[in-house]
Amino acid sequence: MNISVKVKKMENEKILSSVGFECSDNKRSGSFLVVDEDIAKMKNLNKKLEIMPLSEAVEKYPWLKNHLKSVSKNLLGYFIRVLPDSEIDYPIQTGFYMEKNKQQIIHNVLVAEPNSKVHLISGCVSSVNGEKHVGINHYFIKKNASLTLTKIHNWPDVITSFSKDNVVVGENATFISNYVGLTLGKKNKSNLVINIGKNGVAVINSIVYAKENNTLYINDKIFLNEEGARADILSRTISNGGKCFVKECISGRGKNTKGHIECDGLLLNNNGIIYSMPALEAMHSQTDLSHEAAVGKISEEELIYLMSKGIDEESAKTLIIQGFLENKIQDLPMDLQKSVENLIQRISTEGAI
Amino acid sequence: MNISVKVKKMENEKILSSVGFECSDNKRSGSFLVVDEDIAKMKNLNKKLEIMPLSEAVEKYPWLKNHLKSVSKNLLGYFIRVLPDSEIDYPIQTGFYMEKNKQQIIHNVLVAEPNSKVHLISGCVSSVNGEKHVGINHYFIKKNASLTLTKIHNWPDVITSFSKDNVVVGENATFISNYVGLTLGKKNKSNLVINIGKNGVAVINSIVYAKENNTLYINDKIFLNEEGARADILSRTISNGGKCFVKECISGRGKNTKGHIECDGLLLNNNGIIYSMPALEAMHSQTDLSHEAAVGKISEEELIYLMSKGIDEESAKTLIIQGFLENKIQDLPMDLQKSVENLIQRISTEGAI
Repeated sequence: MNISVKVKKMENEKILSSVGFECSDNKRSGSFLVVDEDIAKMKNLNKKLEIMPLSEAVEKYPWLKNHLKSVSKNLLGYFIRVLPDSEIDYPIQTGFYMEKNKQQIIHNVLVAEPNSKVHLISGCVSSVNGEKHVGINHYFIKKNASLTLTKIHNWPDVITSFSKDNVVVGENATFISNYVGLTLGKKNKSNLVINIGKNGVAVINSIVYAKENNTLYINDKIFLNEEGARADILSRTISNGGKCFVKECISGRGKNTKGHIECDGLLLNNNGIIYSMPALEAMHSQTDLSHEAAVGKISEEELIYLMSKGIDEESAKTLIIQGFLENKIQDLPMDLQKSVENLIQRISTEGAI
Repeated sequence: MNISVKVKKMENEKILSSVGFECSDNKRSGSFLVVDEDIAKMKNLNKKLEIMPLSEAVEKYPWLKNHLKSVSKNLLGYFIRVLPDSEIDYPIQTGFYMEKNKQQIIHNVLVAEPNSKVHLISGCVSSVNGEKHVGINHYFIKKNASLTLTKIHNWPDVITSFSKDNVVVGENATFISNYVGLTLGKKNKSNLVINIGKNGVAVINSIVYAKENNTLYINDKIFLNEEGARADILSRTISNGGKCFVKECISGRGKNTKGHIECDGLLLNNNGIIYSMPALEAMHSQTDLSHEAAVGKISEEELIYLMSKGIDEESAKTLIIQGFLENKIQDLPMDLQKSVENLIQRISTEGAI
């Protein structure tokens, strides 16, 4: 079953494109779009994929109910399943758009079956009518499978958003998460729990920018449960007056597990706060955990160096902010890469003033 | 007023000496010893010092009451004041010994007046009768003054101990804290809050060793409140079956403030936990905060290297553990240095088996 309600206005197409959702489906393997409380689009362009509303999937796959606390008639969101032994060429795109409603509550489930490989782009966006967005997501990455998840938020200042992601990384499986939060909304709270099996890998990259009146809470916890599990967290946070509380934890519980956290913060203005709290929990004598962090101002030395090359102060600051954010998010499709770069350019200029 | 009750047994002298308290007063500027609920010794050997029971001091200095939540007749502990412009040559020693009682609750206050300099050795020890020890301490370090505090715990496995230290570091003042916790007791909880004024400095060093059935909670918070305030935290934690929760936070709130945290942990055995959580809070754009941490096992490479030099595995491990703990605590008087070294030697051997 494919649902395809044409997204009505050009304006909306542009809004969706800002979070990686291409209404043309160009270079996408599948699309799932929720506008307010309706599935506005559902399209499956690859026969190695199953894409359906989650409300239908719970009938077909009753085990799903174990993972969904509030199984109601109103269960809104996708179920995506990548069939075994299938490498999906183009990304699947999902979009969640609050056009008129004040509230949106989404439940999503993705299952990457053994030996599959997929990239999921998930974009959230709202008009200024929105007030609250809740996203509850489950990702099951089976043996030898690989999921790259690129999540983009583009919230107006009025929005409060909560997201809760639960990820199970199977034996020898890979999870790569890219989070781009450059327009965070009033309050942005995310909670990520990852359980990693034998020789599984998780890589978490995030770039966030909080301006005046934005408050951000990130709370990530990764469990290296079994032998050889590995995790790498790299977060870059800029506060230009916003309040950022970033808590990252890696727990080493299996033999020869390895984890590293790098959290860097740049505070552009005294009204802001960056609270960086990377935690390491060693529960096995054969685990190897480390982290490093630096939170502070724009380096005077870098600034003076650039200015000595004839660059004016504002441009020098823009360059430093840009450098701080760039190259942290990898493997984006070209179109998305471009729109992230534009966003970085814009806020770098804004931050430098 | 000097109180001097002879410490009765040679055995007790030895116990006290293990936490830096020399009953002979050799190379000490003053002594204050509490045994159970009595002041067993109070001796002032330097006229630039004031030493008295805190219960007396609250009459002489009524402002003290603002800092003591439970001012009762039973207020037990010292008041020490270092007069202005006085550099005290030998350390002052304080000892808290639970010989027969199950419980000891101590309140202490030290004031280092402007331009003074002093080293305080504080030792806590108990017989196997003890159950609970509570220490609540206030240190006021005035303008240009300097306090070095060396705190040593030697608890039997039955003890639960709580300590709460409140430190005010004035303009251009220095606070150096050395904590040696190599025999931690059943549960050891410490809470340290430091507020630092203009150009003030705090340096916190700790070495702790938690064996089976020991649980350790460290919670340090340092506020760099004013321009030029600096803090440096270096903690080394070994778990040989014990549970260690180490939370260190530096909050940068003033211009040109600078803080660094380094937390390293060594987990020798899978029953143990090391939870390391160094937090940075940037609340001023001119603050510069950083940390690094590594928690894990004994490095295989180091071990193989030492063994290739003909050292057997157990001795190689002893050397690595010793290296991890040594040289972190500086400026100890010779006698104390020796007793800390002996302790490190003993637990390194224990840990290597």
